Amino acid sequence: MSLIVQKYGGTSVGDLDRIRNVANRIAMQFAKGDDIVVVVSAMTGETDRLVKLAHKISKQPNQREMDMLLSTGERVTIALLAMTLQDMGLSAQSFTGRQVGILTDDVHSQARIEEIQADRLREALSQKIIPVVAGFQGINRKSDVTTLGRGGSDTTAVALAAALKADLCEIYTDVDGVYTTDPNIVSSARRIDKISYEEMLEMASLGAKVLQTRSVEFAMKYRVPVCVRSSFNDHPGTLVTEEDIEMEQELVSGITYDKNQAKVTLIGVPDRPGIASTIFEAISKENLNVDMIIQNVGQAGLTDLSFTVPQTDAARAETILSSLAKEIGVNKVKITENIAKVSIVGVGMRSHTGVAAKTFTSLAAEGINIMMISTSEIKISCVIESKYTELAVRTLHDAFKLGKDQKAKSETI
Amino acid sequence: MSLIVQKYGGTSVGDLDRIRNVANRIAMQFAKGDDIVVVVSAMTGETDRLVKLAHKISKQPNQREMDMLLSTGERVTIALLAMTLQDMGLSAQSFTGRQVGILTDDVHSQARIEEIQADRLREALSQKIIPVVAGFQGINRKSDVTTLGRGGSDTTAVALAAALKADLCEIYTDVDGVYTTDPNIVSSARRIDKISYEEMLEMASLGAKVLQTRSVEFAMKYRVPVCVRSSFNDHPGTLVTEEDIEMEQELVSGITYDKNQAKVTLIGVPDRPGIASTIFEAISKENLNVDMIIQNVGQAGLTDLSFTVPQTDAARAETILSSLAKEIGVNKVKITENIAKVSIVGVGMRSHTGVAAKTFTSLAAEGINIMMISTSEIKISCVIESKYTELAVRTLHDAFKLGKDQKAKSETI
Repeated sequence: MSLIVQKYGGTSVGDLDRIRNVANRIAMQFAKGDDIVVVVSAMTGETDRLVKLAHKISKQPNQREMDMLLSTGERVTIALLAMTLQDMGLSAQSFTGRQVGILTDDVHSQARIEEIQADRLREALSQKIIPVVAGFQGINRKSDVTTLGRGGSDTTAVALAAALKADLCEIYTDVDGVYTTDPNIVSSARRIDKISYEEMLEMASLGAKVLQTRSVEFAMKYRVPVCVRSSFNDHPGTLVTEEDIEMEQELVSGITYDKNQAKVTLIGVPDRPGIASTIFEAISKENLNVDMIIQNVGQAGLTDLSFTVPQTDAARAETILSSLAKEIGVNKVKITENIAKVSIVGVGMRSHTGVAAKTFTSLAAEGINIMMISTSEIKISCVIESKYTELAVRTLHDAFKLGKDQKAKSETI
Repeated sequence: MSLIVQKYGGTSVGDLDRIRNVANRIAMQFAKGDDIVVVVSAMTGETDRLVKLAHKISKQPNQREMDMLLSTGERVTIALLAMTLQDMGLSAQSFTGRQVGILTDDVHSQARIEEIQADRLREALSQKIIPVVAGFQGINRKSDVTTLGRGGSDTTAVALAAALKADLCEIYTDVDGVYTTDPNIVSSARRIDKISYEEMLEMASLGAKVLQTRSVEFAMKYRVPVCVRSSFNDHPGTLVTEEDIEMEQELVSGITYDKNQAKVTLIGVPDRPGIASTIFEAISKENLNVDMIIQNVGQAGLTDLSFTVPQTDAARAETILSSLAKEIGVNKVKITENIAKVSIVGVGMRSHTGVAAKTFTSLAAEGINIMMISTSEIKISCVIESKYTELAVRTLHDAFKLGKDQKAKSETI
């Protein structure tokens, strides 16, 4: 007998038929003798509907009120799913984030879980009741409702699995796992059977939208095995777990891309100590999220400094830096919006050299110019012109033999 | 400076324009220097939409889950109204029933308020924040969400007014007060300026759907002055308050009717001690709500026993009694559905005789047969054939000179 936390996303509970489909899945698992905790999102479209209402009222609705508003979506789903399970003769009960003791910090709309009490969940499980928990939400110490950000239900599920020491956390969604790259771009993209937390974290934060990044951080921290699956079929999905020998044989696990970045370049920055810190302090004070940073070695005491920010922040970055530029003697601020970041992720890179070289060679062979490069132990990211995104992804997917018929486990360079 | 609790019903907050209209009213009152606590219902149609979803899942959805589901409606409204007030530059904050400490008993869907803590309301008021509270809901001692029954937001408002010792509780709805009778039946029906709690209680429970009965009980118990007004105009509304000299001069305050009753008659009941208690125990065990009861004196040791139940319970009453009838030797159980109860309400009856006589005479003059009669200190109810309802109401409204141009304060009989 295992304890399994199952999370069903918005499309999986999009209407009453789909809710019944989910209930059937739960019933089947329960019949096997497992203990199950269910976490659900709001029905598809519901969150958007509520956001739209709020934005008709105010351009910048108060975040505390947004959390009060949006947290209702999951509450509707838990009640409807609990009713459906009950109607099938099962013992089920709905719980809000508060009721299962999900305590968060005060950051409305982007709250972080600080503590999970889970007493009522343990009590329900001991009585063979299937708890149906509202994802995405908790309460802060003032007892106000908070939400965990888009995709926050993933984090709820993983956090509950950690708190309950569950054997597995299943994330049900509308795709049947994590792919080597976006199947919309590369038709031969292959579902990954098993992936390490570290790789998944890079994949998630780099743009593979299957799992919320924070849920992966949580899973890694508490060593919760997470399985990403589809609620519409019975494919086994992708298991996100600790790195093991089998996985290490994979040189590269996947290729991701992100088109929502803009490049900011400061041209002619005086090359003196403390100048970079002045610039990035000004930026961080405005809560701009800087990603890649490179500084070119310059001549005549001047350098060029480039970094990327989310495209939505580009205009704001320009405003801040243009006024700062005069103060500190920078020649020019330039924003480049038509860029994309393409990344190669794989724990195998740790023990294999040559991935970077192969990446650069492959892109060069297609005439794709690399504007910026950043690397970590298990990742290489290249900023390129956005029009080359699909070509770059296909080229790299091929180069590292990630396709369905190319899988070559023990390939070395 | 006064403390006013304002409650806005579903039609008053039916869409974003109406929510803005409500926000304007609140702002105007606030500008006068008053402290205001706002209580709101779900937007019109929202509760029905959710009920429909639940009934598609199950004929008898679990009541705890229904409360979880339905309580979301008010939460959406409080968030949207708080945002609207904030957008107008006012300081406002939404609160759920739980957050303002509305503690109820365990009876899901019909919970009763046991305690109101209101600490957060007092704190908000002391900071000149306008609290916007979700009506209709509270939590029980297990911390589960409960609801107070249809119209429960009225009770929330009055209960908060009592807890905060407010100077006035305004109930905003889509009619501009309590009328002498249904204006759809009698066009000359007159808005009542002032009515006593006792009369309002009879009016409310007899079918004038302006205020939830329990809210009037609460108001009477804690002596909260309640004003029923429209949110769509500036009419002064009806003040529900303690009986005073001015009011006593009104002989009859209003005529109400109720078409949703059925008459159950047991024919040939053995006339022996304990038989009535056997019958009504069987009925109460099934939670059937019995209203009027009459027992005719019979001949040859047999009597007829009649009582009314809500029409929705009539079939169930028939089933229970048919099986009981055999056991205790009752000849026949008969259900009459086409009945109506017409009632005359007025504190003036206490000190004036002749109201009953005038009622019977007036109805008889129109050829309306009275099937059952019940009276209280301030009320006379007659059961008649339902087809005569409108005629009876018009006749009595005229007989007691309740119309716009007939008002005769000091009339005696």
